Amino acid sequence: MSNPENKQFRLAARPQGMPKDDIWELTREPVPDPEDKQVVVAIEYISLDPAMRGWMNEGKSYIPPIELGAVMRAGAVGEVIASKHPEFKVGDKAGGNIGVQTHALVNGSELRKLDTSLADLPAYLGVLGMPGMTAYFGLLEVGVLKDGDNVLVSAASGAVGALVCQIAKLKGCHVVGIAGGPQKCSYVTDELGADACIDYKNEDVFAAIRKHCAQGVDLYFDNVGGEILDAALANLNLGARVVVCGAVSQYNDMANMYAPKNYLQLLITRSRMEGFIVFDYQKRYPEGAKAMAGWLAEGKLKHKEDIVEGFENFPSTLRKLFTGDNFGKLILKV
Amino acid sequence: MSNPENKQFRLAARPQGMPKDDIWELTREPVPDPEDKQVVVAIEYISLDPAMRGWMNEGKSYIPPIELGAVMRAGAVGEVIASKHPEFKVGDKAGGNIGVQTHALVNGSELRKLDTSLADLPAYLGVLGMPGMTAYFGLLEVGVLKDGDNVLVSAASGAVGALVCQIAKLKGCHVVGIAGGPQKCSYVTDELGADACIDYKNEDVFAAIRKHCAQGVDLYFDNVGGEILDAALANLNLGARVVVCGAVSQYNDMANMYAPKNYLQLLITRSRMEGFIVFDYQKRYPEGAKAMAGWLAEGKLKHKEDIVEGFENFPSTLRKLFTGDNFGKLILKV
Repeated sequence: MSNPENKQFRLAARPQGMPKDDIWELTREPVPDPEDKQVVVAIEYISLDPAMRGWMNEGKSYIPPIELGAVMRAGAVGEVIASKHPEFKVGDKAGGNIGVQTHALVNGSELRKLDTSLADLPAYLGVLGMPGMTAYFGLLEVGVLKDGDNVLVSAASGAVGALVCQIAKLKGCHVVGIAGGPQKCSYVTDELGADACIDYKNEDVFAAIRKHCAQGVDLYFDNVGGEILDAALANLNLGARVVVCGAVSQYNDMANMYAPKNYLQLLITRSRMEGFIVFDYQKRYPEGAKAMAGWLAEGKLKHKEDIVEGFENFPSTLRKLFTGDNFGKLILKV
Repeated sequence: MSNPENKQFRLAARPQGMPKDDIWELTREPVPDPEDKQVVVAIEYISLDPAMRGWMNEGKSYIPPIELGAVMRAGAVGEVIASKHPEFKVGDKAGGNIGVQTHALVNGSELRKLDTSLADLPAYLGVLGMPGMTAYFGLLEVGVLKDGDNVLVSAASGAVGALVCQIAKLKGCHVVGIAGGPQKCSYVTDELGADACIDYKNEDVFAAIRKHCAQGVDLYFDNVGGEILDAALANLNLGARVVVCGAVSQYNDMANMYAPKNYLQLLITRSRMEGFIVFDYQKRYPEGAKAMAGWLAEGKLKHKEDIVEGFENFPSTLRKLFTGDNFGKLILKV
């Protein structure tokens, strides 16, 4: 093969608050030839996820932080253009945590082969990828979803939240979403089938939860943290479960974290608040992916991708996650 | 019987902050004769517990608030002096939630007969009473204690904490207590057998947890809330359990609740924070009491009562719970 140029976004400085353009270095280098067991993937789509903000901070977390100077970590999918791994051949579609770059040289064991007859490539970054697995295992395993539960979901139009809403509806639950603005709220009720959606930008969230979850909240799936978490805690039923999936409202200012004043509602209502990391369920992804693909094939799961074109737009596109400007699963098209 | 005078502390006003003397009304009335199924108990010991502060606030909680003008709710034990209930006869020792008064007229079904050959009467307000059941079910059921867990306990010299320390040691765990002052800390290590005790009044709690729980915290049994909860959250192991038993540091100023800034550690460490109310385990009290009585008989459970004499001292004695001035299970001797 002729060695193409690989463009990469590397972390040049740790961000303070919102990740600005100047924390990134755009580097160019030729793609090396694969050695034994290695594969070269020409990346077509890169997944942008709120969790990426946490990976950019220094210090111990659930996975090591991105080293300064390293290619930014991200899920991505594309086409195999060279392979010395027996399971991958040129032309295969494949994906993995292969970074914010145009070409990835990786060991085949780090890749998953993707069947594009089942769903198009971007879906493997959303409904059949990390957000899909997050919704599936977070709701059913961590949240121990029960038939008929009153389920409240924040960031309900987002990549994870939209799937949580739909899975909960498929399981016969009463589902109330929370999203920002009338357009997203209409999507949550009209397209995703939630029973109601609270517009946190224009409504008193506490009062709206009380109104729409008149029977109380049995399961709160939290993607945002902050005051919305507090409002949810104040409306828990006995024996409720709060699934801590993320806190996107807080990621850019962790030092001034909004702390949940109403945590003692856990005592009053004998409830549980539990965090999880989807990577812990990696061994069970086939089970989750099978269920999600089944619903997808039956037309029971809608998914919406917000695809921004142009590799060079990575820094500004990433910020959309934290300003509420994206609508659907945010993906960068290389 | 000649009808004795019953003295009662009634809630005359809802407290703001620390419950002052003037929120109580001391009333006197003759004890009525028992009617069918009723029993009169001459109360000898009254249990003073942090949870009482919550019962004095207006508004929905896990049990209804004390009505203004009503006798203050409390656990108490004493001797039957009149009975029209077949299971109780004059001279029996009995206890229940029978209030801050010198004499209680109650239905026999609300009373439990007490065997003073097993333990003296005050023990039925502590190790064999509500604090004992709280420690037993909180640690083993809510906390899902595992052999070898690294257990951290706040208010470790208190009625519940002291039992939590000892049960965890009996189960082969590494136990670190937190208490206020060198005297209480010595008690926790030397008498209760904890591996270490952190003096929150004289030590940096975060650093001390890091030092004494060098392997991290698998189970944190929280009686106090506040900054100590935050320090514990910052030191959790993967898959840890935080048992929310109480928040005695916060009860007198709930409007300015100290909220746990580090709650997102639940996500990073995939941990769970869960509240409980001991009354939910009422049907299983015989199981808990049997286990506790067994350990007690084997000399494996130490218990310490802090007994204050004089019914009229109720208002000032209650405040000792919130200033850290009591040492052991606080009991008022009538």
